[in-house]
Amino acid sequence: MTDTLLETAPLAIDETAADRIFRQARTTSQWTDAEVTDAQLQAAWDLAKLGPTAMNTLPLRLLVVRSAEARQRLVPHMAEGNRPKVEAAPVSLVLAADPAFHEHLDELFPVYPGIREQLAPATEVREGMARKNALLQAGYLVVALRAVGLAAGPMDGMDFDGVDGEFFAGTGWKSFMVVNVGVAEGEGSPYPRNPRLAFDQVAEVL
Amino acid sequence: MTDTLLETAPLAIDETAADRIFRQARTTSQWTDAEVTDAQLQAAWDLAKLGPTAMNTLPLRLLVVRSAEARQRLVPHMAEGNRPKVEAAPVSLVLAADPAFHEHLDELFPVYPGIREQLAPATEVREGMARKNALLQAGYLVVALRAVGLAAGPMDGMDFDGVDGEFFAGTGWKSFMVVNVGVAEGEGSPYPRNPRLAFDQVAEVL
Repeated sequence: MTDTLLETAPLAIDETAADRIFRQARTTSQWTDAEVTDAQLQAAWDLAKLGPTAMNTLPLRLLVVRSAEARQRLVPHMAEGNRPKVEAAPVSLVLAADPAFHEHLDELFPVYPGIREQLAPATEVREGMARKNALLQAGYLVVALRAVGLAAGPMDGMDFDGVDGEFFAGTGWKSFMVVNVGVAEGEGSPYPRNPRLAFDQVAEVL
Repeated sequence: MTDTLLETAPLAIDETAADRIFRQARTTSQWTDAEVTDAQLQAAWDLAKLGPTAMNTLPLRLLVVRSAEARQRLVPHMAEGNRPKVEAAPVSLVLAADPAFHEHLDELFPVYPGIREQLAPATEVREGMARKNALLQAGYLVVALRAVGLAAGPMDGMDFDGVDGEFFAGTGWKSFMVVNVGVAEGEGSPYPRNPRLAFDQVAEVL
């Protein structure tokens, strides 16, 4: 177990950027009253969308919950401990996977003509691909939000079916996470950072 | 559909860092002959490990395939089109999810005493949590590899059960992706970047 923030090889980005996207960033639950604009969310998306996905499938979808009305629809579907977090957040993003991603593949993945038609009947395959790649994109999105100066508070204690029924009826989108977003007040968390597993605890070299 | 790299709000990291981690980074298949050291991989891990996971579970595990012997064991389990990519890469990381992550939770998540014991009999729950959070960490890892000056070529066309039998027998680790790693030759890819979905194609605002 190690808490060290020292790297063993030099970075290729500046220290401020490394602090911003990983080293000083915390799972945030304490926010200033700064607004989160659609322009900021779009700027984050314009970075995150560039991260690689299998066959450029880009299945991540976002529901931006900003209005008091929308928030009141989301709160009851969250685990009890997460309800005050949604209520306190300037914006909450519901992250969802879209199994109908294949409809965009003629444009997104022109190197493989016919893949759209080939995937169309394979619902289960598409659901698996959508979830897998949307989760990968969620990782990019957390970093991208930080890169535009926002803080993120990801949560997955929630009733996913309830959220899908409330917001995504008829679309097929499958929610898998909520990320609270805003500008962090101080460190953004009242708690010290938890320890992490060190490289030699997670990696085997052959 | 948009190919623009212009953001609509200012970044909180410098332009070089944004280029490095997202805007100029490509899924890489063309490499210089520069070595990838364990120190570089550890530096990337020391950033990626800081990204948030549910209950700080950190289930991502890495098999670093560097020796000719290890590479020859991995290649036959890859989809045919991915075999030359593994053969050409300085290093290939097999990314896996560890359903036994709960064994570390006394240290990793001390705020919830007893969670280790509570999760121990819930094998299926742990498998789902491991896969979900390891995929999220895979997104952090792609960014972190780039942040230490490496390029990444993620692939998921492979026989996962075959890889698990070859390398992970007895550990319970479940492979879900291979990421080729090295220093990109030029742009790292012979192909132009594929288009991406624009914010208004993936987001709904309420």
